[in-house]
Amino acid sequence: MKVIIVGGVAGGASCAARLRRLDEHAEIVMVERGPYVSFANCGLPYHVGGVIEHESDLLVANEQVFRGHFAVDCRTGCEAVGVDPVAKTVQLRDVASGAVTAESYDTLVLAPGAASVRPPIPGIDLPGVFSVRTVPDAREIREWIERGTSFLAGMDRYSGFQTVRPKRHAVVVGGGFIGLEMAENLVHRDFDVTVIELADQLLAPLDAEYGNLVKDFLEMHGVHVVVGDGVASFSQQDDESLVVSTRSGRELPADVVIVALGVRPETTLATMAGLEIGERGGIKVDDQMRTSDPSIFAVGDAVEVRDFVTGEQSLIALAGPANRQARIAADVIAGRDAHFRGTQGTSIIQLFGAAAAWTGASEKSLRRVGDDDYERVYLYPNSHAGYYPGAKPIAMKVLFRTSDGRLLGAQAIGEDGVDKRIGDLALAIQLGATVYDLEEAELCYAPPFGSAKDPVNFAGMVAAGVLRGDMPVSHWDSGGDAFLLDVREPVELAVEQVPGAVNIPLGQLRSRLDELPRDREIRVICRSGQRAYTATRCLQQNGFDASVLSGGMLSRVLWPTP
Amino acid sequence: MKVIIVGGVAGGASCAARLRRLDEHAEIVMVERGPYVSFANCGLPYHVGGVIEHESDLLVANEQVFRGHFAVDCRTGCEAVGVDPVAKTVQLRDVASGAVTAESYDTLVLAPGAASVRPPIPGIDLPGVFSVRTVPDAREIREWIERGTSFLAGMDRYSGFQTVRPKRHAVVVGGGFIGLEMAENLVHRDFDVTVIELADQLLAPLDAEYGNLVKDFLEMHGVHVVVGDGVASFSQQDDESLVVSTRSGRELPADVVIVALGVRPETTLATMAGLEIGERGGIKVDDQMRTSDPSIFAVGDAVEVRDFVTGEQSLIALAGPANRQARIAADVIAGRDAHFRGTQGTSIIQLFGAAAAWTGASEKSLRRVGDDDYERVYLYPNSHAGYYPGAKPIAMKVLFRTSDGRLLGAQAIGEDGVDKRIGDLALAIQLGATVYDLEEAELCYAPPFGSAKDPVNFAGMVAAGVLRGDMPVSHWDSGGDAFLLDVREPVELAVEQVPGAVNIPLGQLRSRLDELPRDREIRVICRSGQRAYTATRCLQQNGFDASVLSGGMLSRVLWPTP
Repeated sequence: MKVIIVGGVAGGASCAARLRRLDEHAEIVMVERGPYVSFANCGLPYHVGGVIEHESDLLVANEQVFRGHFAVDCRTGCEAVGVDPVAKTVQLRDVASGAVTAESYDTLVLAPGAASVRPPIPGIDLPGVFSVRTVPDAREIREWIERGTSFLAGMDRYSGFQTVRPKRHAVVVGGGFIGLEMAENLVHRDFDVTVIELADQLLAPLDAEYGNLVKDFLEMHGVHVVVGDGVASFSQQDDESLVVSTRSGRELPADVVIVALGVRPETTLATMAGLEIGERGGIKVDDQMRTSDPSIFAVGDAVEVRDFVTGEQSLIALAGPANRQARIAADVIAGRDAHFRGTQGTSIIQLFGAAAAWTGASEKSLRRVGDDDYERVYLYPNSHAGYYPGAKPIAMKVLFRTSDGRLLGAQAIGEDGVDKRIGDLALAIQLGATVYDLEEAELCYAPPFGSAKDPVNFAGMVAAGVLRGDMPVSHWDSGGDAFLLDVREPVELAVEQVPGAVNIPLGQLRSRLDELPRDREIRVICRSGQRAYTATRCLQQNGFDASVLSGGMLSRVLWPTP
Repeated sequence: MKVIIVGGVAGGASCAARLRRLDEHAEIVMVERGPYVSFANCGLPYHVGGVIEHESDLLVANEQVFRGHFAVDCRTGCEAVGVDPVAKTVQLRDVASGAVTAESYDTLVLAPGAASVRPPIPGIDLPGVFSVRTVPDAREIREWIERGTSFLAGMDRYSGFQTVRPKRHAVVVGGGFIGLEMAENLVHRDFDVTVIELADQLLAPLDAEYGNLVKDFLEMHGVHVVVGDGVASFSQQDDESLVVSTRSGRELPADVVIVALGVRPETTLATMAGLEIGERGGIKVDDQMRTSDPSIFAVGDAVEVRDFVTGEQSLIALAGPANRQARIAADVIAGRDAHFRGTQGTSIIQLFGAAAAWTGASEKSLRRVGDDDYERVYLYPNSHAGYYPGAKPIAMKVLFRTSDGRLLGAQAIGEDGVDKRIGDLALAIQLGATVYDLEEAELCYAPPFGSAKDPVNFAGMVAAGVLRGDMPVSHWDSGGDAFLLDVREPVELAVEQVPGAVNIPLGQLRSRLDELPRDREIRVICRSGQRAYTATRCLQQNGFDASVLSGGMLSRVLWPTP
């Protein structure tokens, strides 16, 4: 059996290694048009930022390892430029010489990845305008931004010696993963950074109010954020610096521009081979990663897969799913029965020492598929016991099915423990857990690591409280003309007050029930929702129509007052 | 309905708050013999160590909150000294005045906690010998260890000013949670610390080889550890310092002694009331937390519960399960249907910035219940992508059922990300997951937080490889006379070599198969097991009887060479 694998990064390299382990005697050829196989593309922004110092750190395995350890005929600088699915041959072009040869296969695996989206904006090819997709891309950016750096300025970072120089400007076009990671890393490199995003929010997979929170957070760290505006053109000044002109008329100076408008599946070969392309533009595969040609498999960023929470087809350009798909393709090629269970879109991004992460469905995606059998809650638990130093609040939004309590999705932002909780919730979604299961979870607790009621338990308790009718919830964007009852202590009102809300501290509530209306919906507010819950229970049992304003004052920032 | 709750710390306080939320009109009395309710006993060692600076930080809620927010008749300094289950009354003693009054109940909840085990060792009541169970205990220890501290010496910690003084000695008796937390905190307080443990290992719930790892780790941080030895007596010297004499004849000087020999359920009241006591000595309850008297419930450290992984009855003195039980008792008292699903013993302890954690069954507990339908693997994944700064290896042991792949238990030790992975695995056990589910888990991945193959995925892949027959495993303690094949590079042998092992680097293996025996079991060694896996696959498919030595050289330290 001869297998040719096109692409040698996450999907291709994993597939080659797995296939060799399953079949010692297969002939395996892996071709990669770039100079490196199995490099860490997720690390590129951090290499630009200097967090990952050496380019060599990004090279996880190399050609020699694939040849020596895995007996894989690994060829870098070798591009697949054509496929003949009838003759079962691939045309391979040697990038250096340009020579093209045909190589036959029994099975072909396409792992070509995705390409950066680079729309035909005037000036996009000017020097100083970069994408970030490959090791050479990162190298060029580093060289460009270090260009003007004098020896003394370069020393700053090491010696603490302060040189006086005007702050340089960077513009990042696109507020997705790579855009925001680049923004953070360019701040590390001492740039004044502006992010421009065409959509109304950053990080499109998040719901809008969490996109707002990310924006606030970036601005708190000195990044300028422009949403709802796109780039009209790039132009070069006499001093070689750039100007980014936006559709709305902004003119932003830039010493460097990063275009990070996302990626599109690389489907050139697949199209040549006449393979079916899916509704989202990725190569169509079944759950065994087989394309419409039974001898051709495809994995990684180039394929589209099913989101098993929403049922939507989706494009997921992430290394985790690529690796899983690659293992499954190898299993199937080796004659085993293996199936890809789909994706749930679990993602995380570091933001100045904090993190934003999510998994499963968002409200946005539920609305897109017409599913309204869900409720949401907002909570702000501490990352570990509040009395142990270093605890940080985690902003969490949890979505769950109203009819059966099934966990549907979660989003979280915070400076500590976000990865852990979204990971837990991702696993819970995978395993079909309900919010009632989360109430009962027995996670690691000692004061430095969690709380006796972990944020995951707490999320379950709040959500289950809603479903059991113990805690009806309302939201700041619920609308309507409800009576607002603020049960905080008077001293807390000094921080922020809600116009129109009536204050009765929780401790006085039972003796002042006669001040509340019996013919109006009452929404109860406190700092985070906990006292409001106790108050709501009291009001409900005394015959009032009450609900907890989910997340209390802490949620208020999610919907900026117009 | 009148409910009396005896005990106001984790279980009692949670039960009172929950019960009020469910029933606005119940009469709720909560009595606590100590001066504080709802205090953070998990934080006591850290308060002694000065990590949690102020005693007030340990007081989570107070009497006023219970009265004001929850309308609970909360009485501190009030001890329940008798129960008449027929008359349904409790005798309450005012600790200050000694006056005893009878109070009637409809429902009684016992949440008395557990008491420190203090065996009648000669000298155990000498000044300077302490237990750590209450806020006053912690205060006494602080006062004792700060006693001899001069102003200048006290300044050390803040000013960096170095005073010359002989190191003081602390002896910690007992190598469980509290013992090791106290050891760490006494090191923070600049003591020379010795831990004495009667059993052959530290942290009894861990398997012996992981107990060894904890011992190594503590010794690396300067703690002296003595296992397999107990205290014979404590005696006082002329200068008021202590000497701890051990059974084996050791004489250890001590300026302070902490006795941390575990706790036993507080069953005095339960026994008075004639309630059934379980096989492990805790109050017997059903899965609704009801004792043998239908009007009396019990929760927390005082009860015994079912370990739902092994089926054993167990005593779990942890705040998480206490809180869950308290909620369930409150639900049932309020007329709801709620059931405690049992415990899985998830635990974590911080050790000098690292952590040891576990969940589910250990090999020890499986052997205890006569279950041999399991296999184990050892692995050492990085806490996050190796190329991103700060990644630390996590030592993991994973137990799973051979017949169906069900995850049974896990233990882990490391300096980063241990809580996250054991939490994930705990949730997986709760939800009945198999190791195949772990292979497919879609957790949070970005270079600072994980790897494209997270440690959890990796654990699943290794375990599933064993079950699929792709990767037979052997262990350093497997015994027998196997041929040892070391596939590391020659340069790695310089670090440590295995006597009798034959070295053939992986890259040369396929061309040197004729050097290997076809009539003997071959165990393949590399650094961590990854190359050994590839080699084993190659050997198996070439007709050899090969297995991976699980965890490779990194596992070797688990069983110290005699």
